[in-house]
Amino acid sequence: MPFRAPVSDYQFLFEHVVDLQKVIETDRFAEADKDVIDAILTEAGKMCEEVMYPVQRNGDLQGAELENGVVRTSPGYAEAYGKVAEGGWISTSADPEYGGMGLPHTITTAVNEMMSASCLSLQLNPLMTQGQIEALEHHASDDIKAVYLPKLITGEWSGTMNLTEPQAGSDVGALRSKAEPNGDGSFAVTGQKIYISWGDNDFTGNVCHLVLARLPDGVPGTKGISLFIVPKFIPDENGEPGVANTLKVVSLEEKLGLHGSPTAVMQFDGATGWLVGEAHDGMRAMFTMMNNARLGVGCQGIGVAEGAYQHALAYAQDRTQGRSPIAGGTGTIIDHADVRRMLTTMKADTFAARSIAMACAVAIDMTTATGDKECKARAAFLTPIAKAFGTDTGIAVSEMGVQVHGGMGFIEETGAAQYARDVRVTAIYEGTNGIQAMDLVGRKLMDGGEAAYRLLDEIEANAEEARDTFPELAEPVWEATETLRETTEWLVSQTDMNDRFAGSVPFLKGFARVLGAHFHLRAAMGEGEYGARTKLARFYITRLLPEHGGLLAHAVRGAEDLYALSPEDLVA
Amino acid sequence: MPFRAPVSDYQFLFEHVVDLQKVIETDRFAEADKDVIDAILTEAGKMCEEVMYPVQRNGDLQGAELENGVVRTSPGYAEAYGKVAEGGWISTSADPEYGGMGLPHTITTAVNEMMSASCLSLQLNPLMTQGQIEALEHHASDDIKAVYLPKLITGEWSGTMNLTEPQAGSDVGALRSKAEPNGDGSFAVTGQKIYISWGDNDFTGNVCHLVLARLPDGVPGTKGISLFIVPKFIPDENGEPGVANTLKVVSLEEKLGLHGSPTAVMQFDGATGWLVGEAHDGMRAMFTMMNNARLGVGCQGIGVAEGAYQHALAYAQDRTQGRSPIAGGTGTIIDHADVRRMLTTMKADTFAARSIAMACAVAIDMTTATGDKECKARAAFLTPIAKAFGTDTGIAVSEMGVQVHGGMGFIEETGAAQYARDVRVTAIYEGTNGIQAMDLVGRKLMDGGEAAYRLLDEIEANAEEARDTFPELAEPVWEATETLRETTEWLVSQTDMNDRFAGSVPFLKGFARVLGAHFHLRAAMGEGEYGARTKLARFYITRLLPEHGGLLAHAVRGAEDLYALSPEDLVA
Repeated sequence: MPFRAPVSDYQFLFEHVVDLQKVIETDRFAEADKDVIDAILTEAGKMCEEVMYPVQRNGDLQGAELENGVVRTSPGYAEAYGKVAEGGWISTSADPEYGGMGLPHTITTAVNEMMSASCLSLQLNPLMTQGQIEALEHHASDDIKAVYLPKLITGEWSGTMNLTEPQAGSDVGALRSKAEPNGDGSFAVTGQKIYISWGDNDFTGNVCHLVLARLPDGVPGTKGISLFIVPKFIPDENGEPGVANTLKVVSLEEKLGLHGSPTAVMQFDGATGWLVGEAHDGMRAMFTMMNNARLGVGCQGIGVAEGAYQHALAYAQDRTQGRSPIAGGTGTIIDHADVRRMLTTMKADTFAARSIAMACAVAIDMTTATGDKECKARAAFLTPIAKAFGTDTGIAVSEMGVQVHGGMGFIEETGAAQYARDVRVTAIYEGTNGIQAMDLVGRKLMDGGEAAYRLLDEIEANAEEARDTFPELAEPVWEATETLRETTEWLVSQTDMNDRFAGSVPFLKGFARVLGAHFHLRAAMGEGEYGARTKLARFYITRLLPEHGGLLAHAVRGAEDLYALSPEDLVA
Repeated sequence: MPFRAPVSDYQFLFEHVVDLQKVIETDRFAEADKDVIDAILTEAGKMCEEVMYPVQRNGDLQGAELENGVVRTSPGYAEAYGKVAEGGWISTSADPEYGGMGLPHTITTAVNEMMSASCLSLQLNPLMTQGQIEALEHHASDDIKAVYLPKLITGEWSGTMNLTEPQAGSDVGALRSKAEPNGDGSFAVTGQKIYISWGDNDFTGNVCHLVLARLPDGVPGTKGISLFIVPKFIPDENGEPGVANTLKVVSLEEKLGLHGSPTAVMQFDGATGWLVGEAHDGMRAMFTMMNNARLGVGCQGIGVAEGAYQHALAYAQDRTQGRSPIAGGTGTIIDHADVRRMLTTMKADTFAARSIAMACAVAIDMTTATGDKECKARAAFLTPIAKAFGTDTGIAVSEMGVQVHGGMGFIEETGAAQYARDVRVTAIYEGTNGIQAMDLVGRKLMDGGEAAYRLLDEIEANAEEARDTFPELAEPVWEATETLRETTEWLVSQTDMNDRFAGSVPFLKGFARVLGAHFHLRAAMGEGEYGARTKLARFYITRLLPEHGGLLAHAVRGAEDLYALSPEDLVA
């Protein structure tokens, strides 16, 4: 059952759905013409199929282990990582000055998604490094950049993010890690960090930790937090790994999935680090990096959805069972209406989630290229939706994949369950999906809904344009958008934030449903009446879009009824 | 974090929601008065809390294993099983003539649900035995009854169901196992069966397999299948386990969850068995047993939902994180609106699913007691809904439980993930939830919708009754029921079954949403304006019931659009 990278889907999407053209027409991305992009996608796809996918099961069957303080990675991971790094796949968007390809983030997003589809555990390593590269590019001193960036970009070194502490999860401001000046420009970082993805490995020459900690004069809360780069081995005068730093992996977590990715508890004991960005301004640097990381995690969900979908589709085409209701005689289960419904739902939702993520990436690229405020607001608005809907889709699609397999889905040997277990954390890390939804109805509506309404205007304008060719699809999209507009207006008008938060997750889901319909409609417009994507759009708009009604009704109930149920009521 | 058996919830439900009174007023169940029922529920609850729950994690941490052909069960399972059997909890509804308690199936359903909540892996063993007891009570000869029933009822022996073969899953009629007459009234059964839950154990004196196989003159398909009882040890003249039969456990499956329950591949090599029921009539006997087993599996889902809910609630009340939006200062996460929304959803859906299951159980009891055709039709109609919605709820609630735990949810140590992994199979076995939905829109609407409409009439009458006290709840329930009626009419009018099947799962889910609202409304009526259950009903009806709209819109699309997407389109 080979994995087939969905290169043609990205190509279609870039041309007809999310308008990558405007990105490559900017000066900033002038070198990324269609030929370059096609070549990159094709090569990346090939690498995912031939290098990463073959080690996917290994990570599950023989996870990373801690042996005498050293992390031993899964069989084949070191070799596969070597090829990923060698191919330049860690740094497709990194600064060419330091060895990166400087391509649009949209291309990196597609590449990351394919890598996630083929081997999520291993892909998480470069994803972390990409986030670190970005944080350093934006916030580090030239000295730090010169030492770290070239080696992170080649993949010789890898990067991690150290935010969470036992008492400080979603509430980062509660962290207790400290940093004391050493007097030579460096700092002594002390504290314990948990859930550190790829906290160590046995295949990169160094592991560089970006650590949030508080300086002696840092105020309590998020405003007193600074960011430090703390390497496993302190670079010597030539920038090569030197003496070991005073930090260690205390333990690795036993997780539901993603066994190939070591999740570490890290202990820093006066470890030498250097400030990244300004003192007490660590959260800003962290947010730069986290925003794109959120999109990256969204794409992990979408990638797993693609992988799980292909896996289930292959099974459904192969598994003989019962009489075929369409062909007569013994048939494979894909002939059964409910199996067809599940597979089509999986594909339609994956396409919707992918379109949203790519639209977000395009907005990020346009912001990078033009500095345009509306583009920036668009990217910011779409990020929590891309993250939460992408990962929710990963979970829902891989769960459906298990169901398509019937009894075999519960048996680990088939690999269907691995997708569901691996992807589960994506709805939790990098800000839980609940946090994403709070961000959407809070921070992202602080403009009075301007960014939201601009997006809704575009959706309606597009639906108007589609009325002639696809009246039966354009009308429901237009109507749903109006409902979504009213819901958004209601949320914007709530001054007690808790009234917004009480319906934030259903709102985000409802918004994603409508956005997905918009992109499916654009796909139909790009492909014409008889195309496969048009049939898929019809399925989505007539069968899945109607879910927005229930979700948006839920979104406008406010907090009062919710809090009327006391904890005692909940126990009773 | 102790488990607390929801005894008071059943008591409330029996009194105010599903009318158990009419059951205990029948002659058949005259001995089961309220005091008896309360005592049974209380004792069963205590047993679940004190005997079964303490071994729940053991099954996950050290699953059943096959050692030299012998199944070794998880630590503590043998002792716990001994107490379950000793307490009579396997046979609360079994025939008193053979040692059972003869209580209403509704009580057994509640007991089974509590047992599932406390330790699903172990509970599956008595559930299988119960199914076997029932099949034998209805279909076996007096000789077989006399040998097997007393020992199954005490739990001295356990029972299994052997239906599935590698090539015959949902399509049971494709099975290849054979049975040849031995000439002495017994048969030589040969074949391989897969997915045999509790195919063997190390704590019962015998394991009795009910095996579907084909006699030499059995026609192909389901009409040529017969049912046999094939014991691990052939009973001697005193009915005690004698010589070992020619059957064995070939291997145990490596599963996503439910590790405490050994899932066996069984090999029968001319094993001695006896016919249960008439030759070639095995499917009928199997269906008797499967119908109640389906309700039993639905309750497994509900039980796990209850367990996962209590587990998440305890965590949310304990976990300090961030500023409380309602109390100010540092708060526990239950103060956060989205966590409150998740917990309330979990509780509201569990209540809805439980009510549906109990209503189904009451209908089964009324059928047993009176033979009434309408009761029988009601039970038949509710069974697939109870099974699918109960297990879907188990999956959704335990998934939310993981999410409530945040990062800790992905760490196996907390136990949140175990609920999600264990319950996953319940949507698959005993007929996948897709098969349940096909049954609902196919067989269960073959009466032209009569049973469905009778139920809808009752819901509307109840809503009418509630209009004075709860107008804002009664109206949406009434309206949703009208939409459901129209949807049902549409389905009934489809002559091509595939047009029904294409929307069967969304229809079942939509039906369950409305039924759940009905029972929540009844709970509010039973409890009055300020009760906790009334607040819960308000949450369900205003926030979750609206989902029915999207689901029912999906249900009436027919098959054409779905099949327009060819397998090639799905690959592209």
